[in-house]
Amino acid sequence: MPINRTAPEPTIARLAIYVRTLRLARVEGVETLSSADIEARTGINSGQVRKDLSYFGEFGKPGLGYAVLPLYQRLARIMRLDREQTVMIVGAGNMGTALAGYSGLHESGFRLAAIYDNNFSKIGWRIWDLEILDIERMPDLNATMGVRIGIITTPATAAQPVADQLVRSGVRVILNFAPTRVATPRDVIVRNVDLTQELQILCFYLPESLLSEDAV
Amino acid sequence: MPINRTAPEPTIARLAIYVRTLRLARVEGVETLSSADIEARTGINSGQVRKDLSYFGEFGKPGLGYAVLPLYQRLARIMRLDREQTVMIVGAGNMGTALAGYSGLHESGFRLAAIYDNNFSKIGWRIWDLEILDIERMPDLNATMGVRIGIITTPATAAQPVADQLVRSGVRVILNFAPTRVATPRDVIVRNVDLTQELQILCFYLPESLLSEDAV
Repeated sequence: MPINRTAPEPTIARLAIYVRTLRLARVEGVETLSSADIEARTGINSGQVRKDLSYFGEFGKPGLGYAVLPLYQRLARIMRLDREQTVMIVGAGNMGTALAGYSGLHESGFRLAAIYDNNFSKIGWRIWDLEILDIERMPDLNATMGVRIGIITTPATAAQPVADQLVRSGVRVILNFAPTRVATPRDVIVRNVDLTQELQILCFYLPESLLSEDAV
Repeated sequence: MPINRTAPEPTIARLAIYVRTLRLARVEGVETLSSADIEARTGINSGQVRKDLSYFGEFGKPGLGYAVLPLYQRLARIMRLDREQTVMIVGAGNMGTALAGYSGLHESGFRLAAIYDNNFSKIGWRIWDLEILDIERMPDLNATMGVRIGIITTPATAAQPVADQLVRSGVRVILNFAPTRVATPRDVIVRNVDLTQELQILCFYLPESLLSEDAV
């Protein structure tokens, strides 16, 4: 059965969570999980779990739950998390350095292949084991490296020229941490990360009694 | 009408996006937006927009769209983004420093009140205009400051003791950037940020022709 790539995006976001949950269950030696078990581990409603998985075929048996290993393998393949993906970071500031050292990157199957910056006081220095490269050299260097995933961790003002340079260098998907939107050709996918969005969601759930007194 | 706090969480996440979109529209001098306009600005389906807003009352007029200012004010109030919220960061490493300097924090109505660390080589130094405080002093200091939102930006191994200290100090909601889960009492809400989740979603959308050749 060909993989359905038209599933709604929130389903894809949850699929990534299922993959992580299944990987952890494997490590724990768990062999089967029901949708209720998955709900307990992820907080995602068991009906939603079943609906999400139904986009991609028949999994599990009624009353028996899902066999962890085959489901993990199938979902990882759908998400293309069954192989290492290389990424590059542009912006060797605090955010770029934090990401470069983020253990979750490697654990999720990503390999950081290069870090670029335009600041001559940074170029040539190292972050962990990677030399900071001159962004001007990206099209040439990436012709060999072939990285298709770019991560922007520059200030807002630099984000658009950086996105342009990534596109020129063959990048097809961009994760943008800069607090601004970037424009790209239609065949390049951009996801903007807003680090404050989760904080905004948390505020909604603050208990009334704890709200600031200067409330309107 | 009392505010409905039982709306599904994805609705709350989108509400935060609507608030941002409306704020920007105000700055641009736009006075009305249809749900189709909101779709064009956010990528969220116009039917979804109408459904999300319906949880919180009657907004807009058929054929006329939504008046930007009152909708903004109402949604901001629902999301408690109509007042400044103070937050504190624990972990004065790259991620903590990146967040402290993140312009989106202030733009979204958050004020960083304190940064803590347990490393004596950092305590007493400054990040921007804030002195890095000794985490041992948090319960005392926060009795005065009264911050209820804590952000964990430590390595995974430190996350649980930090969460415990936050709870002891009166924090009720925690945003956790450390790549691990933390346990808290039931009345403390934790949201875990996985910086790689967006990357995983992007992988799903990579064009087939660009996939690594070592695919299974």
